[in-house]
Amino acid sequence: MDIKDLLERASEFLDKEIVVEGWIKNHRKQKEFGFIDFSDGTCFKHLQLVYNNELKDFDEIQKYHIGSAIKVKGLFVKSEGAGQDYELKVEKIELLGDCPEDYPMQPKRHSDEFLREQAYLRARTNKYQAVFRVRNVAAFAIHEYFQKNNYIYVHTPLITTADCEGSNQMFKVTTLDFDNLPMTKDGKVDMSKDLFGKLSFITGTGQLHGEAYALSFKKIYTFGPTFRTEKSNTKTHANEFWMIEPEIAFCDLDGLMDIEEDMLKFVVQYVLDRCSVEIDFFDKWVQPGLKEKLNKIINSKFTRISHHDVIDLLKKSGNKWEFEPDYEGDIAKEHEKYITEYFNGPVFITNWPKDIKAWYMKENEDGKTVAAVDLEVPGAGELMGGSQREDDYEKIVKRAKSMGVDLDVVDWFVNLRKYGGCYHSGFGMGFERLIMYLTGVENIRDVIPFPRTPGSCEF
Amino acid sequence: MDIKDLLERASEFLDKEIVVEGWIKNHRKQKEFGFIDFSDGTCFKHLQLVYNNELKDFDEIQKYHIGSAIKVKGLFVKSEGAGQDYELKVEKIELLGDCPEDYPMQPKRHSDEFLREQAYLRARTNKYQAVFRVRNVAAFAIHEYFQKNNYIYVHTPLITTADCEGSNQMFKVTTLDFDNLPMTKDGKVDMSKDLFGKLSFITGTGQLHGEAYALSFKKIYTFGPTFRTEKSNTKTHANEFWMIEPEIAFCDLDGLMDIEEDMLKFVVQYVLDRCSVEIDFFDKWVQPGLKEKLNKIINSKFTRISHHDVIDLLKKSGNKWEFEPDYEGDIAKEHEKYITEYFNGPVFITNWPKDIKAWYMKENEDGKTVAAVDLEVPGAGELMGGSQREDDYEKIVKRAKSMGVDLDVVDWFVNLRKYGGCYHSGFGMGFERLIMYLTGVENIRDVIPFPRTPGSCEF
Repeated sequence: MDIKDLLERASEFLDKEIVVEGWIKNHRKQKEFGFIDFSDGTCFKHLQLVYNNELKDFDEIQKYHIGSAIKVKGLFVKSEGAGQDYELKVEKIELLGDCPEDYPMQPKRHSDEFLREQAYLRARTNKYQAVFRVRNVAAFAIHEYFQKNNYIYVHTPLITTADCEGSNQMFKVTTLDFDNLPMTKDGKVDMSKDLFGKLSFITGTGQLHGEAYALSFKKIYTFGPTFRTEKSNTKTHANEFWMIEPEIAFCDLDGLMDIEEDMLKFVVQYVLDRCSVEIDFFDKWVQPGLKEKLNKIINSKFTRISHHDVIDLLKKSGNKWEFEPDYEGDIAKEHEKYITEYFNGPVFITNWPKDIKAWYMKENEDGKTVAAVDLEVPGAGELMGGSQREDDYEKIVKRAKSMGVDLDVVDWFVNLRKYGGCYHSGFGMGFERLIMYLTGVENIRDVIPFPRTPGSCEF
Repeated sequence: MDIKDLLERASEFLDKEIVVEGWIKNHRKQKEFGFIDFSDGTCFKHLQLVYNNELKDFDEIQKYHIGSAIKVKGLFVKSEGAGQDYELKVEKIELLGDCPEDYPMQPKRHSDEFLREQAYLRARTNKYQAVFRVRNVAAFAIHEYFQKNNYIYVHTPLITTADCEGSNQMFKVTTLDFDNLPMTKDGKVDMSKDLFGKLSFITGTGQLHGEAYALSFKKIYTFGPTFRTEKSNTKTHANEFWMIEPEIAFCDLDGLMDIEEDMLKFVVQYVLDRCSVEIDFFDKWVQPGLKEKLNKIINSKFTRISHHDVIDLLKKSGNKWEFEPDYEGDIAKEHEKYITEYFNGPVFITNWPKDIKAWYMKENEDGKTVAAVDLEVPGAGELMGGSQREDDYEKIVKRAKSMGVDLDVVDWFVNLRKYGGCYHSGFGMGFERLIMYLTGVENIRDVIPFPRTPGSCEF
């Protein structure tokens, strides 16, 4: 049985004989007794096993190494010791798989750098058990939120031949043999010989396809892996990550902000309810104040302010900025920090200068800004980015052309504006950024099971 | 509001004024009345809008085209007509987005081939509304099943440098510029200049990484996109599809079959409960008998039989086979069909000849077979494939070598057998195959929003 069920329904199993299988996390040996800190990975809490020298293989058991897999039969009883409510009085232990003494995951504090090199084992440590358990719960919370609100989960394609993000930002995929590339007469690689008959990519967004489905189902979301070729080795960049992209028909920018706020509060509450032990652990060992931060976000009303008014505030602040606030420009990290501290909570920044935002965003009546919104959260910067989409056929065609987008490959997308188009909006949220926010873990490499970063694609 | 909520909680809204936004699916005009078949995509059922010539813009409304987006205010009342319980007595209609008369999705029966060419619009038809709604519900059912049974959802990486499936079966990914490839001195493409410093791929399985996580969390599952480069244009092959791969520590082959059977029954029941209208539709228009088939599977006990005994049965059948049944060989489509009909239900075929199965599967004591299992279901063939994994370090190393697997790239994977290894098992299920089974739709292209097949990567 799972230790999770055993501990959650302890009264049901009290003083009964049970069988569990799992791993030795620690082993304290005394002359007549032994204590095994035991876990099967189904919950953060461990189970204490107590055995004594009445067992005929007592001497043998005392030799069992940390990390070994065992099968245990015993009596589930109230613990007389401190530190746990229950324990298992061992009747029989069977060694399923030994673990040599050079096992890298000895019970001591390891550096994150060392554990990255042991990515296939690190999920056995307390910290990474907690990280990936929160990741699991948060993923399900996202599904639950959208399902209960009538959204359809759509699997948008990853492989695409549409180069609308600029091919430098997308991985190319190919079935061609690099050691024997087919060439055209004019000496170029003959992409017509590739599986799809042309150059293809793995995409960095499902938004375009998501819009087509929002205009069929009203409310949809994607949740899948996303790829970027950025060659930046920072704490917040990975080349492979997961993203959630909801898209909603009959929804304007205000409606979109309502959804973003509601969803984030739901997910935070869901994780607080189901991962309280893990959050306590992070609060103690990783980011002191985490629990208060998360509770606060649930109870705060998110500020909504235009990009223009944010620049005003920054200019009036009297601060000396490394990057001078600019009505036509982006908002730097130092500005994000100031603004979330100024409002003491999450801030939606709306109506951005159109020249620094994407071609499919809705132009506002001023002709200068677009109905885009970024959500900035204290201590984590931008968590979500979205916009109302341009729903005017003539306008989007004009804008696509002016931005150099190849209309041949997005003709179907702009046609959505012709066939029963309507006002609609959507946003994207990087899942890893959410997990970092929920756990206080600061490096994206430490919230992805097997991270992929420039020069590093191990395991 | 969503039509789904309106119809599910009809009594609550009866005789109240409500506002809905959605699309005109059909439009019948009479002299003094008009009837609009209206849908917002949130449920399979439509809402009938009734308007009359008391509206001042009656003549204008009568011109509204099929496919147009509208906003409607009206009184939600019991319908006097046949065909629906409720209808909306229109007080006001606002045209949000027109739709020209050349709109391809006119309300008539279109061929699947035609609709594939209109993949960005086809989800607006009844059939594809139903397909992608079932797909959504089945996806959530899978998450729900594993979550309630204490599994951890793991996002295994897609990009890998480990070529353990053979590079011909995997897409290569690259950031190199095909028009300007860096070359080594000996005239080969210099893969060290690529983003990860070597040749990399997108993988066709998360199993290896899944095993590492199962040995940390006991029970895990993956659910994500998968890629194959197969150049076969059949009804059941696509180059991009979604797969579910659970992996369970302390689980043998019998335990694995228990899980597969339990999961499948759970998902089928879940879909029957929540998509009864859609299943009725498929039963009527796509696969007569579908509903009976699905109900039957829930109530049947799946047969378990060894590969050897299956071959015996096939040989004794007296049938003339295109492919002669072979104790050392695979089982052909005609054999699958015979066996599922013979047992009149789903059949687990166990203990396959080791030479036709993967290197990581557990060798049985006979030295000839492995503890693999395929689940064959009536009318759909193989739905799941799994095995107990080889947990003996020496044996798996020997077997990997004999199969030509490069141990340098899977050293971490075989090491899992060294550090507290234990008996464990897992299986894979192609998600599209499940959807085809649940809907009766016969072509994989018609259960994927935007399918990718050889030579075809449109939209």
